[in-house]
Amino acid sequence: MDEKSIPRAVISRLPRYFRYLGELKDDGVERISSNELAALMKSSASQIRQDLNRFGGFGQQGYGYNVKNLYEEIGRLLGLDKKHHLILIGAGNLGQALANYVNFEKRGFIIKGIFDKNPAIHGKMIRDVAISPMEDMKSFMENNDIDIAILTIPKSEAIEVAKKLVEYGIRGIWNFAHVDLSVPENIVVKNEHLSESLMELSYKLNDGGF
Amino acid sequence: MDEKSIPRAVISRLPRYFRYLGELKDDGVERISSNELAALMKSSASQIRQDLNRFGGFGQQGYGYNVKNLYEEIGRLLGLDKKHHLILIGAGNLGQALANYVNFEKRGFIIKGIFDKNPAIHGKMIRDVAISPMEDMKSFMENNDIDIAILTIPKSEAIEVAKKLVEYGIRGIWNFAHVDLSVPENIVVKNEHLSESLMELSYKLNDGGF
Repeated sequence: MDEKSIPRAVISRLPRYFRYLGELKDDGVERISSNELAALMKSSASQIRQDLNRFGGFGQQGYGYNVKNLYEEIGRLLGLDKKHHLILIGAGNLGQALANYVNFEKRGFIIKGIFDKNPAIHGKMIRDVAISPMEDMKSFMENNDIDIAILTIPKSEAIEVAKKLVEYGIRGIWNFAHVDLSVPENIVVKNEHLSESLMELSYKLNDGGF
Repeated sequence: MDEKSIPRAVISRLPRYFRYLGELKDDGVERISSNELAALMKSSASQIRQDLNRFGGFGQQGYGYNVKNLYEEIGRLLGLDKKHHLILIGAGNLGQALANYVNFEKRGFIIKGIFDKNPAIHGKMIRDVAISPMEDMKSFMENNDIDIAILTIPKSEAIEVAKKLVEYGIRGIWNFAHVDLSVPENIVVKNEHLSESLMELSYKLNDGGF
């Protein structure tokens, strides 16, 4: 099966399946049919079957899905069976909020280093990690196995910093800066443009909702 | 033209058009062809023409788009020609980060009230707005014309609070709580599930990137 051919929309639905299955598992549910899952998720049974079939046969005709297995399989697809080491660049309000978010750690996303250009906050601790100067990023990445960088810096600096991160061997960038980064194709960038998201909400309000 | 039939993917691209056109306008560019815009946005000219044609004829064959007009038209579609009044529910790290984000205000999204259940922070000011007890939300909404609520509270509380917001007349909810809200269809909900976003990034890393 060629996973690369899986549509983006399907991939973006996987974390939601994972969330619902985790809740079902915690509630002690062992099996669930696509119809029941569809009712719960306000989705359709055929979409659920189609989505999950793309990754192989998880369900058994007439028996439904084994909740725990499916939860674990989707977790593996999402790379949650491994630990990911992250650095956070930019320890302003948003950066600090993300660094303080314990749920990431629960899922195996561990923030190992925090960098900021503001000397006034160097040495300040956020959950056991000290904020370091930007200049230390290179040697830190050489000495630690870092997968993902979270970029919470102004857009004027983001492009340059992203270039450096690529040079130092980053694999993925979670970009909160309000700019499109230009990085090689093998680097995974996930943009989180919060103000654009708010504009979409505003569009829908304008439109009367749909 | 029936705006309701516009695909979600097109709507989600509007803020990005708006961003690029704003930058072109600030750079003093007056006209741009779909080919030039496509090169800049790493998109295709035909997608740009198709997207923009859905909202009426913005461009003139052979003359390209008038940057300032198109910028303003898209801004109007996104409801940015009006002021939106917001309340923020949950003044934890993420809530405070959002309340401090000045760019929202530049776009006409004004946070008028901030509510939190933690008495220790009641009265604390975030950019001229005092944090108030949750109990004050109802009368505040009765006395202020509030469009949008930002929900930055734990998922255990989000569903109940969303119900109340609907009762008090909210029109849109920007939901950062890691749960699906159940609200009437005429209420616009935009989910911002940050940890699911990080999982998508992790999926793509797992998959070698694409």
